[in-house]
Amino acid sequence: MSGSGAPVRFRSRTSVEQVEESNDLAPRFDDHGLIPVVTTDASTGELLMQGYMNSEALGLTIRTGEAHYYSRSRQTLWHKGATSGFVQTVRELLIDDDQDCIWLRVDVAGGASCHVGYRSCFYRRVPVGAEFERLQKEGHVDLEWTDTEKVFDPQEVYGDAPNPTVL
Amino acid sequence: MSGSGAPVRFRSRTSVEQVEESNDLAPRFDDHGLIPVVTTDASTGELLMQGYMNSEALGLTIRTGEAHYYSRSRQTLWHKGATSGFVQTVRELLIDDDQDCIWLRVDVAGGASCHVGYRSCFYRRVPVGAEFERLQKEGHVDLEWTDTEKVFDPQEVYGDAPNPTVL
Repeated sequence: MSGSGAPVRFRSRTSVEQVEESNDLAPRFDDHGLIPVVTTDASTGELLMQGYMNSEALGLTIRTGEAHYYSRSRQTLWHKGATSGFVQTVRELLIDDDQDCIWLRVDVAGGASCHVGYRSCFYRRVPVGAEFERLQKEGHVDLEWTDTEKVFDPQEVYGDAPNPTVL
Repeated sequence: MSGSGAPVRFRSRTSVEQVEESNDLAPRFDDHGLIPVVTTDASTGELLMQGYMNSEALGLTIRTGEAHYYSRSRQTLWHKGATSGFVQTVRELLIDDDQDCIWLRVDVAGGASCHVGYRSCFYRRVPVGAEFERLQKEGHVDLEWTDTEKVFDPQEVYGDAPNPTVL
């Protein structure tokens, strides 16, 4: 499906008013040709992941209705779920005021989005404010788990593929 | 409040296992010293904005419980709401698997987060998939408004301050 149909064309950015207050789709890609993407679960509102698209990935996402990203660690176009099967079907694609950020509201096949095996990439929280003051030790603070149950075994799904986490 | 208390210290990043599976807070800041931040409304799950923090902004957010960002357009620490009054109180701060992205779940005083005047920065949607195919004209696609009512008048709140949108 990814290869079919006419390419999606974006407008040039000509004025602040056009970008903020018109219905022209005129996204801003950064110096690396990327735009940040926020992906939430369309049903629960939960944040699943934050990634990046290049213009090709954004065009393919719009045309196919399935989330495509650009993987910075692997430096390649990335059809999410092509390896794991956890394809993201886009229910809604929104763009922000100055058109330099994309919001995807998706349904996830299999319910997992995180390469570590959790439902969401965001499975740990940081205590803030009064709670931080109470829990801190010499300025350090420990993360707390919000989700302790993995929904899949990364070893089974990804095998020996390199871990994308960069130190 | 921002100036009081001990500074927040972050752990060094020593291994993939430590970063992904331990309770060490060891955030990864990029080449510009920044980490992307996704901010959602804690009550509705709506995406309000996507921004960036440097280590100072992250430390202040953890210590004070109010969202601080780094403004790339103004190149300065930015206590959200200091000008507009729309302070973001952090209900929960989460970090992702490889600790290179922050998720803030916030309550917003006044209910607005967008400098254009809307509740959320994401007030326009892009048709995708079959809907895109139906609506496209020569590969171009028009944005659709999801929110047409401004909750404040930017001119009244910001006066003659320069618009942060970069073309």
